[in-house]
Amino acid sequence: MAAGDEQAKEKENFRAKMGGALEQRLFYIPSFKIYGGVAGLYDYGPPGCAVKSNLQAFWRQHFVMNESMLEVECPSVTPECVLKASGHVDRFTDLMVNDVVTKDCFRADHLVEENLERMIADPMLAPARRTELEDLLARIEELTAEEMGAAIVDLGIKAPETKNDLTAPYPFNLMFPTQIGPSGAAPGFLRPETAQGIFVNFRDLLYYNGGKLPFAAAQVGQSFRNEISPRAGLLRVREFTQAEIEHFVHPDHKDHARFDEVKDVGLSLFSRDAQLGAVKKPFPMSIGDAVEKGIIANQTLGYFIARTQLFLEKIGINPAKLRFRQHLQHEMAHYAEDCWDAEIESTYGWVECVGLADRSAYDLKAHSVASKVELTAHERFAEPVMEEVLVVEPNKKDMGKAFKKDAKAVTDALQAMCKEDALALGAKLEAEGKATVATEAGEKEILPGMVRIAMETKKISGRQFTPSVIEPSFGIGRIMYCMFEHNFYVRADDEQKTVFKFSPIIAPIKCTIFPLVNDAGMNALAERVSRELAADGISAKLDTTAISVGKRYARTDELGVPFAVTVDHRSLDDDTVTLRERDSCEQVRLKSDQVLALVKKLCAMTTTWEEATKGMERQEQAAAE
Amino acid sequence: MAAGDEQAKEKENFRAKMGGALEQRLFYIPSFKIYGGVAGLYDYGPPGCAVKSNLQAFWRQHFVMNESMLEVECPSVTPECVLKASGHVDRFTDLMVNDVVTKDCFRADHLVEENLERMIADPMLAPARRTELEDLLARIEELTAEEMGAAIVDLGIKAPETKNDLTAPYPFNLMFPTQIGPSGAAPGFLRPETAQGIFVNFRDLLYYNGGKLPFAAAQVGQSFRNEISPRAGLLRVREFTQAEIEHFVHPDHKDHARFDEVKDVGLSLFSRDAQLGAVKKPFPMSIGDAVEKGIIANQTLGYFIARTQLFLEKIGINPAKLRFRQHLQHEMAHYAEDCWDAEIESTYGWVECVGLADRSAYDLKAHSVASKVELTAHERFAEPVMEEVLVVEPNKKDMGKAFKKDAKAVTDALQAMCKEDALALGAKLEAEGKATVATEAGEKEILPGMVRIAMETKKISGRQFTPSVIEPSFGIGRIMYCMFEHNFYVRADDEQKTVFKFSPIIAPIKCTIFPLVNDAGMNALAERVSRELAADGISAKLDTTAISVGKRYARTDELGVPFAVTVDHRSLDDDTVTLRERDSCEQVRLKSDQVLALVKKLCAMTTTWEEATKGMERQEQAAAE
Repeated sequence: MAAGDEQAKEKENFRAKMGGALEQRLFYIPSFKIYGGVAGLYDYGPPGCAVKSNLQAFWRQHFVMNESMLEVECPSVTPECVLKASGHVDRFTDLMVNDVVTKDCFRADHLVEENLERMIADPMLAPARRTELEDLLARIEELTAEEMGAAIVDLGIKAPETKNDLTAPYPFNLMFPTQIGPSGAAPGFLRPETAQGIFVNFRDLLYYNGGKLPFAAAQVGQSFRNEISPRAGLLRVREFTQAEIEHFVHPDHKDHARFDEVKDVGLSLFSRDAQLGAVKKPFPMSIGDAVEKGIIANQTLGYFIARTQLFLEKIGINPAKLRFRQHLQHEMAHYAEDCWDAEIESTYGWVECVGLADRSAYDLKAHSVASKVELTAHERFAEPVMEEVLVVEPNKKDMGKAFKKDAKAVTDALQAMCKEDALALGAKLEAEGKATVATEAGEKEILPGMVRIAMETKKISGRQFTPSVIEPSFGIGRIMYCMFEHNFYVRADDEQKTVFKFSPIIAPIKCTIFPLVNDAGMNALAERVSRELAADGISAKLDTTAISVGKRYARTDELGVPFAVTVDHRSLDDDTVTLRERDSCEQVRLKSDQVLALVKKLCAMTTTWEEATKGMERQEQAAAE
Repeated sequence: MAAGDEQAKEKENFRAKMGGALEQRLFYIPSFKIYGGVAGLYDYGPPGCAVKSNLQAFWRQHFVMNESMLEVECPSVTPECVLKASGHVDRFTDLMVNDVVTKDCFRADHLVEENLERMIADPMLAPARRTELEDLLARIEELTAEEMGAAIVDLGIKAPETKNDLTAPYPFNLMFPTQIGPSGAAPGFLRPETAQGIFVNFRDLLYYNGGKLPFAAAQVGQSFRNEISPRAGLLRVREFTQAEIEHFVHPDHKDHARFDEVKDVGLSLFSRDAQLGAVKKPFPMSIGDAVEKGIIANQTLGYFIARTQLFLEKIGINPAKLRFRQHLQHEMAHYAEDCWDAEIESTYGWVECVGLADRSAYDLKAHSVASKVELTAHERFAEPVMEEVLVVEPNKKDMGKAFKKDAKAVTDALQAMCKEDALALGAKLEAEGKATVATEAGEKEILPGMVRIAMETKKISGRQFTPSVIEPSFGIGRIMYCMFEHNFYVRADDEQKTVFKFSPIIAPIKCTIFPLVNDAGMNALAERVSRELAADGISAKLDTTAISVGKRYARTDELGVPFAVTVDHRSLDDDTVTLRERDSCEQVRLKSDQVLALVKKLCAMTTTWEEATKGMERQEQAAAE
């Protein structure tokens, strides 16, 4: 077996083992399983729900609270006009092909990609053809429908199972369509992202913020994408939780007041140059250096990249498997200034989990045009400035006399002129003694004296402008899945013992409490400890099932519970209990009334296990374990 | 003006004033406002989001944590088969009529209701006709399409504005339709309730719970109802957050282990008898008495009713405006054992905010039939029981000889017989020496000896059964809206000063911190206090805007912030600050390092303001206030 195959096999085994552990303990469940399920839809069971809720709570604390962001909650059901303005109705598509006989649907890029990879793997392939195909593969995401169709013909691709011919590729919109109201006259969609709800509320949010920039708004909620053929388990789903931030900022002032707090954060950067260069590898660099060298466009974007790195590390992402990849020029929307993806390595390869983009003023401008509502901020200059401005001043009396009821149409037409046209008209009037103007009431001839057209110097004390927006956008489910992979392991001494080494911030339950055997005294003490923890907000679970402590430890490891208290025979004599740490399996003995304080400190992560238990009595591990 | 009109006017004024305060401070915003909005869709702005998130967190603590419920999270997008099984595809409808000319849509019951109310209000109405119309009004929700159509004709109802004729009423399904996947072959809907996600996962959840009953599962999430003509603001919306619990229990054992903890909770009960009797008023009673007297069907339902009362009181619902109304027989689904709604009085009248229903085994049975997956629990009898069971034992040899390839059909037909039919057949065989059986292969004549039919006593040690489910279902938005109404008031000394007296559990911000004037020392101290609070998880907001403290207090009152710290000139000398309580406007002076502990205690509601500040130095109120 080739080394590559072996590695692939290993990854598959790991994934199967972990997937089994996750499904077995109901971290997630294929949705509507008793009805055969629906591709791309998953439920979270009790521990999955708890992990997700912890992840979201920590996200809120790390971003929303820490920076006093304005949180909003908008509906999923969205009228067509909003998504027309944002560009989703026209452009949120994937290219699709059908089996001409069965009508089965396939994603064109996936079919071409799979075929290209298989062909390129062939050692007998002619070098010129290989280069050609490799080039095609690199450009796969930017192919037009025509180019994709040509590739399908050129490569002779057929429908995967039937081997029937395929239709030409055509765009399929990924939004779930629906109807709002009973009349059928109000088409709508399920939102494909949470961001639009923030943009349409910009005016109110700016007002709420006292008219001041910069400020950030955030939304956590469900988004929906009707994927053509979902695969890759929890990574490509049809309904998912997004957490998005829109940080509104003056387009000329993208420094960040708190940049200094993060400037030394180290990152693995896979810049455009690094991707296109010979080595094609990310490099380590501090965010301070990256912004200073212009690798990252500005401080605000850099600030959020660094904060994202810190967030991901805290929730248990392995920093060695985390990189920030810059979008290549052709990947970026035409309006974007700079885009980086936080990519996390999993058994499926590098997965885009967070997008960080400087989207300039695109979104606000698009909604402003479509809604005819001004979405701008006001800027008061430090000092008023003198500015040459165009003055178009119709002479009302003469206009009225000459044009009667059409006078307003002529005035409007004159005042709507751009600078160049207005000055040209003025020059013509002066030179030729008359000029023609196209108005809503038809062409009209005007004479000198009817309008004064000139450039004048005026004192300007401020202006309206459209803010830029910097958008960090988190896919909660993808982050969670990668976090599962990075935290899953099998105990060295037993293939059957699987563990999730969740950070205490993330663990679904922080502490389990076991009476060693079913004894009234032990049960009572265990219950007391359990209640004390719960009353202080530490999620605790009492486990009184009549199985060995070793088995109960194994069960708690499968759920990733970091700490376990055991009440044993000695507890009844001296009111001590043991506390076990999940990964080291170490146990210390302490007074039962010290448990709360110690577990609390450990869960707040203000200390380590070694530090916190220094000098405590160590307990021999139970033989059963 | 009649007293009723005056009261209505007063309510309208109150609602307008409060609605203004809510919209002004962005508690909520009509969704997609810059595009003219969409009826029945609302956004929550920053303080609304915070209030909602506090409400949900407290709900989780009060129900999910407190009773170790199993929480799940399922998608909103749901395939048709699931909602076909649950009955929503066929029966989740409202009767609709159209204007025959404009095609405008109206809810038939709303039109009839409005017309009836207007007609009944006419003092000249003949007594017999009045009785007839009042009877119709009382039955409005149970009218069939035909009856509703007859009422429209009888009352001469036309389209509200155009006065055109109306079509006959027809059912309109309230679910938002969509398509799952690209082929168009998989119709789906947005879920109309969160409950179904729990039912379809019953088997896995029971397994997760070690196969033991009772247990409860819970889900908090969005639900969608495509209302025909949404009105009543936040009370009737097209997308809303639901929090539902499904408590699975043995159908014969509906006692609750923790019932004693709530048995003395006092409720206002509007039982079926009270609604149908002469007085038509709710009465006060403890839940213990209500269950004992059989007014509420069982302890588990009673337990959740009491816990709901406690929950609503804690979040600031006025108990004088809270009642539990029992469903009348005709309101209840045919399978339901007993249903109560927690109704909260608002300016819109009594609003159904929580539904509490004993739904028997209906949902699990429906999904079991449709999915062909057994959704049952196993019950092991304390002692094996001897039971008389029917035995139908075909003689394979004789059957094969007599019926050849049809032997199986005959055997199946015999074994599918119910007890009565089988025994009758046995008797006939014995009496007449032959009998005829209808099989899939046609009628067949059988003879004695081909089958043994008898009742026999057997030892049975357990059985499979379908659990009953008791469902408390909370409409988070409705509860929140009523809570807003119950907590809104205007200061006695100033019409313009509006206040929300939110409980500290619910308040969007717990404490604001003001430097009296813009002074470096005051700012620094204010910032220190603010950070200390935030670091301990107390949502705090520093307000350094250059307006008077009085105005800043007013602003903080509008958001319902319960406490405010002011740093003043004296603070710089002796490190004291003042702490103000929102509703009394009382201020005490204390050392700045005592603020955290005091505010924390006040927010945890373990003490009252009077109690906690006893003996502290009182501060004169600022003149500006």
